[in-house]
Amino acid sequence: MATTARSKARRRSKAAADATAADSTAADTTATAAAAADATGSTIDERVRVGARRRVVLEAAAPEVDAGRFPAKRVVGDVLLAEVDAFGDGHDHVAGVVRFRHEADEAWTEAPLRELGNDRWVGEVPLTRQGRWHYTFEAWVDHWDTWRSDLAKRVEAGQDVAVDLQIGASHVRAAAQRASDASRLEAYAAVLERGGEDAVAAALGDELDKLMRGVPDRTHAATYDRVLDVVVDRERARFSSWYERFPRSASPDPKRPGTLQDLRAELPRIASMGFDVLYLPPIHPIGREFRKGPNNSTEAAAGDPGSPWAIGSAEGGHTEIEPGLGTLADFAQLVADCEASGLELAMDLAYQCAPDHPWVAEHPEWFRHRPDGTIQYAENPPKKYQDIYPIDFETDDWEALWLGLKGVVDTWIERGVRIFRVDNPHTKAFPFWEWMLGEVHRERPDVLFLAEAFTRPKVMYRLAKLGFNQSYTYFTWRQERWELEEYLRELTSPPASDVFRPNFWPNTPDILTEQLQEGTRGTFVARLVLAATLSSSYGIYGPAFELMESVPAKPGSEEYLDSEKYQVRWRDLTTPHSLEEVVRIVNRARHEHPALQRNDTLRFHHVDNDRIIAYSKRSIDGTDTILTIVNLDTYWRQSGTVYLDLAALGIEEDETFSVRDLLGGATYQWKGGANFVELDPAVLPAHVLHVRGHGHRDEHDFDPYDG
Amino acid sequence: MATTARSKARRRSKAAADATAADSTAADTTATAAAAADATGSTIDERVRVGARRRVVLEAAAPEVDAGRFPAKRVVGDVLLAEVDAFGDGHDHVAGVVRFRHEADEAWTEAPLRELGNDRWVGEVPLTRQGRWHYTFEAWVDHWDTWRSDLAKRVEAGQDVAVDLQIGASHVRAAAQRASDASRLEAYAAVLERGGEDAVAAALGDELDKLMRGVPDRTHAATYDRVLDVVVDRERARFSSWYERFPRSASPDPKRPGTLQDLRAELPRIASMGFDVLYLPPIHPIGREFRKGPNNSTEAAAGDPGSPWAIGSAEGGHTEIEPGLGTLADFAQLVADCEASGLELAMDLAYQCAPDHPWVAEHPEWFRHRPDGTIQYAENPPKKYQDIYPIDFETDDWEALWLGLKGVVDTWIERGVRIFRVDNPHTKAFPFWEWMLGEVHRERPDVLFLAEAFTRPKVMYRLAKLGFNQSYTYFTWRQERWELEEYLRELTSPPASDVFRPNFWPNTPDILTEQLQEGTRGTFVARLVLAATLSSSYGIYGPAFELMESVPAKPGSEEYLDSEKYQVRWRDLTTPHSLEEVVRIVNRARHEHPALQRNDTLRFHHVDNDRIIAYSKRSIDGTDTILTIVNLDTYWRQSGTVYLDLAALGIEEDETFSVRDLLGGATYQWKGGANFVELDPAVLPAHVLHVRGHGHRDEHDFDPYDG
Repeated sequence: MATTARSKARRRSKAAADATAADSTAADTTATAAAAADATGSTIDERVRVGARRRVVLEAAAPEVDAGRFPAKRVVGDVLLAEVDAFGDGHDHVAGVVRFRHEADEAWTEAPLRELGNDRWVGEVPLTRQGRWHYTFEAWVDHWDTWRSDLAKRVEAGQDVAVDLQIGASHVRAAAQRASDASRLEAYAAVLERGGEDAVAAALGDELDKLMRGVPDRTHAATYDRVLDVVVDRERARFSSWYERFPRSASPDPKRPGTLQDLRAELPRIASMGFDVLYLPPIHPIGREFRKGPNNSTEAAAGDPGSPWAIGSAEGGHTEIEPGLGTLADFAQLVADCEASGLELAMDLAYQCAPDHPWVAEHPEWFRHRPDGTIQYAENPPKKYQDIYPIDFETDDWEALWLGLKGVVDTWIERGVRIFRVDNPHTKAFPFWEWMLGEVHRERPDVLFLAEAFTRPKVMYRLAKLGFNQSYTYFTWRQERWELEEYLRELTSPPASDVFRPNFWPNTPDILTEQLQEGTRGTFVARLVLAATLSSSYGIYGPAFELMESVPAKPGSEEYLDSEKYQVRWRDLTTPHSLEEVVRIVNRARHEHPALQRNDTLRFHHVDNDRIIAYSKRSIDGTDTILTIVNLDTYWRQSGTVYLDLAALGIEEDETFSVRDLLGGATYQWKGGANFVELDPAVLPAHVLHVRGHGHRDEHDFDPYDG
Repeated sequence: MATTARSKARRRSKAAADATAADSTAADTTATAAAAADATGSTIDERVRVGARRRVVLEAAAPEVDAGRFPAKRVVGDVLLAEVDAFGDGHDHVAGVVRFRHEADEAWTEAPLRELGNDRWVGEVPLTRQGRWHYTFEAWVDHWDTWRSDLAKRVEAGQDVAVDLQIGASHVRAAAQRASDASRLEAYAAVLERGGEDAVAAALGDELDKLMRGVPDRTHAATYDRVLDVVVDRERARFSSWYERFPRSASPDPKRPGTLQDLRAELPRIASMGFDVLYLPPIHPIGREFRKGPNNSTEAAAGDPGSPWAIGSAEGGHTEIEPGLGTLADFAQLVADCEASGLELAMDLAYQCAPDHPWVAEHPEWFRHRPDGTIQYAENPPKKYQDIYPIDFETDDWEALWLGLKGVVDTWIERGVRIFRVDNPHTKAFPFWEWMLGEVHRERPDVLFLAEAFTRPKVMYRLAKLGFNQSYTYFTWRQERWELEEYLRELTSPPASDVFRPNFWPNTPDILTEQLQEGTRGTFVARLVLAATLSSSYGIYGPAFELMESVPAKPGSEEYLDSEKYQVRWRDLTTPHSLEEVVRIVNRARHEHPALQRNDTLRFHHVDNDRIIAYSKRSIDGTDTILTIVNLDTYWRQSGTVYLDLAALGIEEDETFSVRDLLGGATYQWKGGANFVELDPAVLPAHVLHVRGHGHRDEHDFDPYDG
């Protein structure tokens, strides 16, 4: 029975082989024959046949987000380290390439894969432009390299290699067929054919090897199952320092509310602190129906300004400006002044409506209606938010809704805005975000969206996958060393780090943590330093932060007392106890030190006192290293020994190195991994240390695969 | 500009909404209109449109092997715990199902998903038949459950719920439209519409809730991106005890070689030790050209039998039987006797040829030819294996080759073989294995293949993914506690455990470890107990193992002296120092205790002496628990305190429990987690303890999500 199967198969296979060598008519005939054979169930399926002689396996590519369903994220200038498992059967060697192209290019570029060990390979993709890039892998059995490596072993063992040199010559002759200039290869083939010591020397020499590597036999190359994507943003997506400011509180005169013009006057102060993004809560007309009064009371007095997030009134909706703040002309001037000050303006994008928002009348079908004829206001039973109508993403009119919502973004982009801070994105439908962010980024890859979602972890990561460029985090509530370390490890490793760019905020208008309520000046400084050095993007809600405001609306609440969300606040920004100078120093360190401008090189170092946390970051080229040490205790001086992972700092075991404190100014000479530190929150709770070895280490590239 | 876009969009959307409600002609018109709009670039892509109102996300399913490229593995009777992340936007509740079907069924079955926490859900798929199963997920926003839960909160807060009850009534009326029997739902809708206490009681009562859950609104249900597969094998794939025996050494008469008939006579001995698989090295004709002599010498004397793995001679190839061993009739009798003894015969499948194998003349194109006209023999330069020709999987005649190789398996299946132990599968092309194993399993899902690959980890895992039902492992060389724990954690967790079923061998004809060479009787017993209790499948190469043969071919070698691979060996199997009785006891424990028949419940317990290892396994129903404690030291008595994870044993903190040693026979009463143990390799190096609580714990199911 087996014999019959064999001889039948043999005949069939002969036909197929002939067809391969022949023209397309013959190939068609074979296909027909194969289809006929398939019907009898006794031959091999066409899908199998295609890959039958692809002996190399490619699997487990990285970065790869959800099997390629979403792109990974990088910024311009990054080199994408594209990894893959590649191996063949038996002991034959493998070679391969990463193939890549920018979405706007037709042609693919290739870079060689190099082996990292344990069948893991990497290729480097220089990401030179914003936008979407595609990449995939190809690999093949490298008969030349296998043969050459075996030859070396045979020669070393003193074996007769006469026949082997003939085999090598045939590899070279075949390669000459594939080469554009065959002459050198043909000459080498002749040398190998002549045999003897010259042939061995040529075979094991560099020149022939280089020629051969240039024309590999890729007939049976395997390709990776998927083409993967990476979205390349501008650098601010990775490195940004945010300052949040309510314009209506920016008045220099305590007797009247602030305006956009007042905010223009404050720009020098904000810029001088070293921020690069100025984020404004909504500046649109505020609804009058069910307007909230001070401290979130349901009764608003005549002059109460209401919550900026209750958007829309007779004066207009999401594309208009609250008349009390100014005009579109004022806004244009603010945008221009920001640019001149090295600041970018970030707009709030809160997709919800006050009851008197124009959309409520124009598009009643975008909201949910109740049997009593009213429109459903926002609720989290038993809590009611009657000044806000949420949007109904299940509406039959969803297409017009989506286009309308995107229209808001388009309008502000046209007015010069490139950054949006999106309010509560987790309460809007995911398909909408994927579409909207995708459309905007396709047209304008330089537009950045920050997701304000403090919700369940998987929801937050999903929003990042859908296209948000940055995301709020749980940092605000991570206060103990173990939880900071655990959370940062999660954020700075795949899968999270491939898609989720954290933005750390010690406070927001919604969150005055219990730690800050009970904290000292040292607590505010420690939280500032942690946010600004653990994460390459961070922000503060000011001037509440630098003035160390700490009184909650009531005991047990994380709301501020007399919150700016519901009333205008005036402060004396010139008070000498302000943290402005500390903020300035911290932001200067961030600007001057590339180590602090990324998160992927973060390493924690052990301290034998768990009230002290220590961690380092390095620039990719290894020339800049920052070691940060923070006392996490609110009140007490803490001391301990830091056990440094010297390799992570680029320092040799026996090397003397200097650490200069960018906060306090002192410089210390250290040697070896164990170093004593003492930090007093009443003085300065942190060291931000610039680490410099005295050896000649600066030229060493940082190796992301080391440690 | 935004206004213009909005009003345009609105008109377009109105048309679409009308079309949805209308007949197919209208829908076609809409499609045309949409296509036209697409051309202007201003409306929404059809692919986006399809999922626009699917508010639930489904991601990260498990098991899922390489994004569904390969099936996971289970055995008949298992309940597949199919997991997925499911969540929606906002605070709406989510509900969903796992959908599944056997490949032979057309219809899908559904089982509800239940939440595990952190947006993780699980559904149970009872795997009642062998073969391939498909499964996927569907989930939707559960408006009813959201409404009901909110109602309870409102009622508790004392709010007026009159309008809410009307909303609930409309949910119930809509559900009645979907129900086959609407009468109860209509009646309930009327109750809700009347309002008052009766309406609240009905809304929060169980009956209406149950009716509503039966007819969920799945209009905008989300489906998981992929349909995933699981291959369901018979139980032996998971639980098996192998005994390897060279038939030619099975003669009762030291003066002549053994035969298949001699082996028949030995079956009662092998069966009485408790094995269920009898594995034979190749029994095919052995090549004469370049035949190897004793101890792998290149010179064979006249009567030397050669290596069984040098397959093929004038007497035939892979489908014939070596005449010295017997005939096909003898083989048939052996198969029948095995079956009668509760043993299954496992054949060796070594795809390689001696120079005088009939295929070499019939199919010279299946081998690689050298420029001097010879065929390439096996090599690992500078080592040469001139008695073996490897197969060239790059041959143009690959299709006939593949069919020929599969023909060998088909032939032996026809002769009653259901288990193959595949020699060196990692030196054959991966596409061949995927095709061949797939074809065989499609026709005969009860056929099992064990991959003999001691190679790089990723290659071994790939072979498992391609369809091998069991795999050899590195267990043989894992001897320290830390490396055993680390390796077992890898093997018993996904991704490995989804595809890779380990088979642990303390020795093989190729591997006499240094540990055994230098070991005592205690070492052999310890390695036996480790293999048999750490892994639900294990095997020994006998009688070398139970007779504790330990002399290597030469110092530093892992080869046996006078190895059966190259010569016939006769032993006195009745010697009183044989480990037969220990093997019998260990195998009896495995057969009587379901806990030892699976690996997924393995838990390690801490011992304060790292020469002692302790671990437990439980049956899925929680009624059977085995705790194994082994002294890993070759020579010395070791003692220490075992700190038990009592929850993993199903024992309460303050419960007294008994542990009965299945090896030594003693019973101890223990209470609490810390217990002293002392083990002497000169007596018995291990406890295999049957753990029984005195509380009423037996009815508790084991919860795979607990710990």
